[in-house]
Amino acid sequence: MPTITHLSVRDIRFPTSQTLDGSDALNRSPDYSAAYVVLSTDAGDGIEGHGLTFTTGRGNELCVAAVESLAPFVLGRTLGAIRAEPAAFWEELVGDGQLRWVGPEKGVIHLATAAIVNAVWDLLAKHAGLPLWRFLAEMTPEEIVRAIPFRHISDALTPAQALEILQRGLAGRTEREAELRRSGYPAYTTSSGWLGYSDDKVRRLTRAAIADGWTHFKLKVGGDTADDVRRARILREEIGPDRKLMLDANQAWDVDEAIEAMRVLAPFRPTWIEEPTSPDDILGHARIARALEAEGIAVATGEHCHNRVMFKQLFQAQAIGYCQLDACRLGGVNEALAVLLLAAKYGVPVCPHAGGVGLCEYVQHLAIFDYLAISRSLEGRVIEFVDHLHEHFVDPVVIRAGHYVVPDAPGYSITMRPESLVRFAYPNGPAWTGGDDGNPTAAMADRITSVEGAA
Amino acid sequence: MPTITHLSVRDIRFPTSQTLDGSDALNRSPDYSAAYVVLSTDAGDGIEGHGLTFTTGRGNELCVAAVESLAPFVLGRTLGAIRAEPAAFWEELVGDGQLRWVGPEKGVIHLATAAIVNAVWDLLAKHAGLPLWRFLAEMTPEEIVRAIPFRHISDALTPAQALEILQRGLAGRTEREAELRRSGYPAYTTSSGWLGYSDDKVRRLTRAAIADGWTHFKLKVGGDTADDVRRARILREEIGPDRKLMLDANQAWDVDEAIEAMRVLAPFRPTWIEEPTSPDDILGHARIARALEAEGIAVATGEHCHNRVMFKQLFQAQAIGYCQLDACRLGGVNEALAVLLLAAKYGVPVCPHAGGVGLCEYVQHLAIFDYLAISRSLEGRVIEFVDHLHEHFVDPVVIRAGHYVVPDAPGYSITMRPESLVRFAYPNGPAWTGGDDGNPTAAMADRITSVEGAA
Repeated sequence: MPTITHLSVRDIRFPTSQTLDGSDALNRSPDYSAAYVVLSTDAGDGIEGHGLTFTTGRGNELCVAAVESLAPFVLGRTLGAIRAEPAAFWEELVGDGQLRWVGPEKGVIHLATAAIVNAVWDLLAKHAGLPLWRFLAEMTPEEIVRAIPFRHISDALTPAQALEILQRGLAGRTEREAELRRSGYPAYTTSSGWLGYSDDKVRRLTRAAIADGWTHFKLKVGGDTADDVRRARILREEIGPDRKLMLDANQAWDVDEAIEAMRVLAPFRPTWIEEPTSPDDILGHARIARALEAEGIAVATGEHCHNRVMFKQLFQAQAIGYCQLDACRLGGVNEALAVLLLAAKYGVPVCPHAGGVGLCEYVQHLAIFDYLAISRSLEGRVIEFVDHLHEHFVDPVVIRAGHYVVPDAPGYSITMRPESLVRFAYPNGPAWTGGDDGNPTAAMADRITSVEGAA
Repeated sequence: MPTITHLSVRDIRFPTSQTLDGSDALNRSPDYSAAYVVLSTDAGDGIEGHGLTFTTGRGNELCVAAVESLAPFVLGRTLGAIRAEPAAFWEELVGDGQLRWVGPEKGVIHLATAAIVNAVWDLLAKHAGLPLWRFLAEMTPEEIVRAIPFRHISDALTPAQALEILQRGLAGRTEREAELRRSGYPAYTTSSGWLGYSDDKVRRLTRAAIADGWTHFKLKVGGDTADDVRRARILREEIGPDRKLMLDANQAWDVDEAIEAMRVLAPFRPTWIEEPTSPDDILGHARIARALEAEGIAVATGEHCHNRVMFKQLFQAQAIGYCQLDACRLGGVNEALAVLLLAAKYGVPVCPHAGGVGLCEYVQHLAIFDYLAISRSLEGRVIEFVDHLHEHFVDPVVIRAGHYVVPDAPGYSITMRPESLVRFAYPNGPAWTGGDDGNPTAAMADRITSVEGAA
């Protein structure tokens, strides 16, 4: 029964702000970054658990520090004990009587929780020799229920209701898996519509994406409305009447502004408006959703929805038509399972947020498990895809004709290449010191914080 | 026009867990702590701005680190520019395109924002030679409106509506101030009802508090229901039928549990149940409020309500009967002003959260300004009071017969004594190294992080 004996955490940053990849209404020049965690055990088998939390640059150092603060709650645990009671482990991690004051279950501390929790699940799946989606699919419904934190959501989803949904999901799995292996999981692309791109670049990238088989396209809006209209017109022109257009305002608007702006953008027939206003504004999202119902436009949100209690309310208020959960904004796999089941209970399709660094690699596992075991439907479901930074992963996503190909390598697909961890170490890796010809090992040495277990 | 040229931040912790002062359902052994900020300028007048954010121990280091990450956004600013457009300053501080990913406006980064913002207001008030409440009262309604971040709340409160409320608050101020100087601002005590205290200690402290003139008493609940009932009975017996009893569950319950537990506790006639469930659960609080209406029990929350968007919804959903804003959970004075005005618009009395370290010192200013300029009423309004750690402040609160005495020293009353900053520096101050006979100056040296302005 291996024991987790060591945790290391690194500050990894990619200088993406130089090209405006990832630019949107409120994130004008992000440097896509990760607080990157590695767990190792006393098993002597060389298997490590990897996990990261995604940030956009400054502030990544806070997530790194928060991982260090949480390390004592994971060191010394056996994989057997975690696997036997995964929700109990999770609730102890988020429930420390002192640390929870600086959350609870939100912001820096919860992003750090996700990196650790996802590393734990990566470790469990690798020990079983299975990709995470299959590791989850091989757990019984009862075992999945024991992994879910029901605290503060039991008014919307009880363990008995979760079990019932999971038991319904047992039938037909073989067929659903065969279908995914044949066609892949449907996806949409955000790569051509960043706010900082010129009209020509949007046009060129959209044409290339159509040639690659994409059918769903997302455009960033929330800047000047005239610009938004011009860019939406370009995209709709390029994709024609039948392909799908989604809009994303990244929180730029107040509630009434969102309604007004979307009435102006309605002629371009967007499927959804994503993050129209503050991510905390459940009632505001509900009001926008009501106002846009007649236009046939749904509201979508999730990448900043910080925990299951917020998603619970978005569902209860019928505020969203699409649930865009994030694999590391939520506190990792345990909480993502809670949200998948809440979404199923309320009949809302899950279209995970991705992009960033490693988010595509993460969420493919959640979406596949959702289809196999929970939602049993691909109707209205698409995983976000952004074609950046995949080259840094040992087991990167594979896209074929606008669909994610089912991954088969053991774990959560989040392990980064050792040379990338060296090059993009912040602030002393060669990508940041100005020359990739420096001595990367020396540059790295002071950036890894290692925490040994007391045991 | 002085420029802010230097920021220092300290990790200050008090070993309160040794006595279970401050123990409640989810914070069983807090070490009351502060990330403590000092701003200085190039004015050469020796005036510094002090501000802190309160935490309960572990995690304080994250707030210290977040203050360091935010420091570049305050260094180099002139007091004149901040005073001319205080909301613009605030929105830049919370709106950095990279840092906002790890919030936005919540958790560690927002707690750190509060420490800095409150230090700025302390500096402004000290420069004017006025206590903060009077500094605010001497601003015109138009100036107050320019200090308020309306982003994401304009559907509930517009600048014009805020102005109208403030203009109504101009009349009768002299009389209201005279009344406060005569009688003080009403308060309630939490000091006798901590969860970790024995029945005898609760009884003894309650009797002493009655002798001191207290009329409002708060009891921590949310542990075992039989214990809660026994303790509520003790408190009601001691205070008699006419004094007020308030209960505080510190998030211990799920929504349905809260309703059940409060029906059991209703015979003790509590005025409110505070934090019955997750602080993020607006709809849950609304459901609890509806369920307890018939019992005459109101719902109260706020110490974990992380920003104005959450308070906006609590008001819109009629989820709370009392607004317990926190001076450093919200992002400092600017956001507190927004919530005071939202509360006035929705007719909800503000009873600020206090206790901790310095929270009583802070919120007396907000409550006094609220009465003078916004609410114009003391009906149903009481400031929390906890009798701990005031001895560490240069200008501690003064309580007389269960009322806060109006403070007159310039600033926000949050400046700590230099010797306390040395003794309780974590982890190397003498209070933590085991001997108060060490050399406190040496122990301190490595715990202050100073950031100089580039200018």
